[in-house]
Amino acid sequence: MNTIEIRQMYKDPQQFRAKEITISGWAKSVRSNGTFGFIDFTDGTYFKTLQIVYTKEKLKNFDEVAKLNAGSTLIVTGDFVLTPDNKQPFELHATGVEIFCATDADYPLQKKRHSVEFLREIAYLRPRTNLFQAVFRIRSVAAMAIHEYFQSNDYVYVHTPIITTTDCEGSDQMFKLTTLNFDKLPLDKSGKVDFGEDLFGKKAYITGSGQLHGEAFALAFSKIYTFGPTLRTENSNTKTHANEFWMIEPEMAFCDLEDLMDVEEEMLIFVVQYVLDRCMPELEFLNSFVSPGLLEKLQKLVTSKFTRIDHKEVIDILKAAKVKWEFEPEYGGDIAKEHEKYITEYFGGPVFIKNWPKDIKAYYMKQNSDGKTVAAVDLEVPGAGELMGGSQREENYDKIVARCKELGVDTNKIDWYLNLRKFGSCIHSGFGMGFERLIMYLTGIENIRDSIPFPRTPKNCDY
Amino acid sequence: MNTIEIRQMYKDPQQFRAKEITISGWAKSVRSNGTFGFIDFTDGTYFKTLQIVYTKEKLKNFDEVAKLNAGSTLIVTGDFVLTPDNKQPFELHATGVEIFCATDADYPLQKKRHSVEFLREIAYLRPRTNLFQAVFRIRSVAAMAIHEYFQSNDYVYVHTPIITTTDCEGSDQMFKLTTLNFDKLPLDKSGKVDFGEDLFGKKAYITGSGQLHGEAFALAFSKIYTFGPTLRTENSNTKTHANEFWMIEPEMAFCDLEDLMDVEEEMLIFVVQYVLDRCMPELEFLNSFVSPGLLEKLQKLVTSKFTRIDHKEVIDILKAAKVKWEFEPEYGGDIAKEHEKYITEYFGGPVFIKNWPKDIKAYYMKQNSDGKTVAAVDLEVPGAGELMGGSQREENYDKIVARCKELGVDTNKIDWYLNLRKFGSCIHSGFGMGFERLIMYLTGIENIRDSIPFPRTPKNCDY
Repeated sequence: MNTIEIRQMYKDPQQFRAKEITISGWAKSVRSNGTFGFIDFTDGTYFKTLQIVYTKEKLKNFDEVAKLNAGSTLIVTGDFVLTPDNKQPFELHATGVEIFCATDADYPLQKKRHSVEFLREIAYLRPRTNLFQAVFRIRSVAAMAIHEYFQSNDYVYVHTPIITTTDCEGSDQMFKLTTLNFDKLPLDKSGKVDFGEDLFGKKAYITGSGQLHGEAFALAFSKIYTFGPTLRTENSNTKTHANEFWMIEPEMAFCDLEDLMDVEEEMLIFVVQYVLDRCMPELEFLNSFVSPGLLEKLQKLVTSKFTRIDHKEVIDILKAAKVKWEFEPEYGGDIAKEHEKYITEYFGGPVFIKNWPKDIKAYYMKQNSDGKTVAAVDLEVPGAGELMGGSQREENYDKIVARCKELGVDTNKIDWYLNLRKFGSCIHSGFGMGFERLIMYLTGIENIRDSIPFPRTPKNCDY
Repeated sequence: MNTIEIRQMYKDPQQFRAKEITISGWAKSVRSNGTFGFIDFTDGTYFKTLQIVYTKEKLKNFDEVAKLNAGSTLIVTGDFVLTPDNKQPFELHATGVEIFCATDADYPLQKKRHSVEFLREIAYLRPRTNLFQAVFRIRSVAAMAIHEYFQSNDYVYVHTPIITTTDCEGSDQMFKLTTLNFDKLPLDKSGKVDFGEDLFGKKAYITGSGQLHGEAFALAFSKIYTFGPTLRTENSNTKTHANEFWMIEPEMAFCDLEDLMDVEEEMLIFVVQYVLDRCMPELEFLNSFVSPGLLEKLQKLVTSKFTRIDHKEVIDILKAAKVKWEFEPEYGGDIAKEHEKYITEYFGGPVFIKNWPKDIKAYYMKQNSDGKTVAAVDLEVPGAGELMGGSQREENYDKIVARCKELGVDTNKIDWYLNLRKFGSCIHSGFGMGFERLIMYLTGIENIRDSIPFPRTPKNCDY
């Protein structure tokens, strides 16, 4: 492997001062004036590049190097020279350039700005561009931030199952999974597909949430979190929908709604600060070329006051606002995107909207004593809208079973989950955060397809 | 939430000395002699429990408490007392016990030893037992160790896709995924299922490996790793097979086979040491009750010499051994479990077996100059057998295409992957490690079903 990486050069240039070094990587651009030239060089370890100076005097293969296309793989030996007065703090004066792979002129990534739409078509090459170098390194660092936050607070990371036979999120939202041969499907006596011959002996799905399984583990370890992929079948072609995405679902025993908001707030600030501390070159690039104001937005977030307010009061504020709404705010209704935007601007920071009308929320949420609302909470963040959704879970067996019946949820399929309310039941809460939504918030990119390495959306599953 | 956790008590008991505290959790057992009694109490935050002493004198509800079943949820207030001369270093002298949920006598986890087979049937409750408290906390800590190793070495964590339409690992090993209605499957003109109407407009699968996508990212970031779930359809009912498991697949540019072994060795030692440093109560329990010698095995590993030896030489050794093999060692063949065991004992430590016969290995592996072998390597570890499998990847376009043709691999379906050999190709290598195999190695448990929270195996997909 490269014994010296560009990342190390930027971290501590002094250690390489006046040394001869060898480094492998790729040319991002090559130019020359016939006697000397420059290679903009990367090894992918750091957002910034290394400038290589090469001369006819020192390189036998000068002419060959001068003709190289972007994307070519080189092994370069040279003298490391500090140049504090230049644009870049150092450069490499090449004494030898070995051409390992000369990329042809048909290489799709030329030295120019490509549209994100074009880059999606070459998803296997786009991580080489500045934009996706920034986005995907931030994605990696943010993932680590999440693990670090929960692990340093002694949460247990649980891998909840991907395959499931309980359709708790509603099977219309779940992919079906089979090992049967579609061209020779076995049929039962009534002529329907016989899943008894499928690998699991019954119809199986891909899960849309790890929450139910997470609750089982929270009632054993007190504090757990999941972080894994989730598939949903929504046939929706918007900027914010993908059929495959990653989710974080923490679940905490002995934790009520107020405690839950504490965790969400603390975690978000931790993650944003973690990325600010580690990805400044990437953020500065995004701030300049993708999302002006991004840095200010993130820096403001970490010192923000988080407002906590009931859904009812939010509707009061929206109704009192002198705004012509596309969707009229309703006490019994959901909060539209335009409302989210208004309310975060109204309070000038993140807003927890809590205690939602029970009729628009799920059966497992804690029923409040008013008989009308549940202890659910959405976190609305300036510039992103809803970032997390959570609730205190109903811990009373009779109440949750009654609510299942009201909503037509088949209690037989989730009997084990309901049993958690009989065996050591306790006040507990949890939330879910879509990881791509976080990445869009952290990077300022506007289309979910550009936040995940190989996006899957309706009619689109290439690579 | 619990403002005080049992974990904190064990970390620094002195801070609670002579203080009155309140803690929520679950009774693991309750006993009394009529005037005083003991509760073995857990909140799930630490492997060891808190002993609660309760007396008739101080508790109004003494009789009620004394009758509680295991698994009941309690909120206990009491005086924290250091008892350095006792079996446990401290105890709580209860002044109040609030019974939040009195679990009935039908609670499946009574104070006795249950078989792992029985516990698998109550997978949603088994994390409350000592065995699974140990296994699943080690699993969480080991997952963090992996992230910490790669992130601290500046690898980029890549979420490779779960859904795929390229059947690179062989579609017979992959689950099919559909949104079509099995009872009303659309047919095309020839009477076959028309996947044009499926969500992605074509037949889709669940991936069996992230390697190919990982390589694309390694050629952009130099060093990447994946860590995610993998599904395979093997209809196999052994102790080491599950249809859903997690995998780690690092991929490094400018990395040859020797470098690859360096990474595997360093990572394994890091992970084992990380778990030794953080999970001693769990490991001591497993060492005593599950796998005698476990601690010694792990402690020895971190200072082991890792042998590196060619496949051919391994066969020489096996053939020379005075052993009656069930499977005769062959120069052109695989290494059986009995051989793995012999060879790690022969060298008294972990063994990298490298340069395998090309005919039993995959098309993407680097072809050695002998024309017979490929630069593949398996890591064999004492007490576990094969723990990682990797290779240098063939970076020459013509050679990999020729090998695809020899093996009947459809190059059209992986054209983008093959293009990586044209656009900035470089020497690169990677390996895969099944996470459950690592957990089995770290915990000494022998059945993969007990290493993952909710195991999925043929005919078994409950919860």
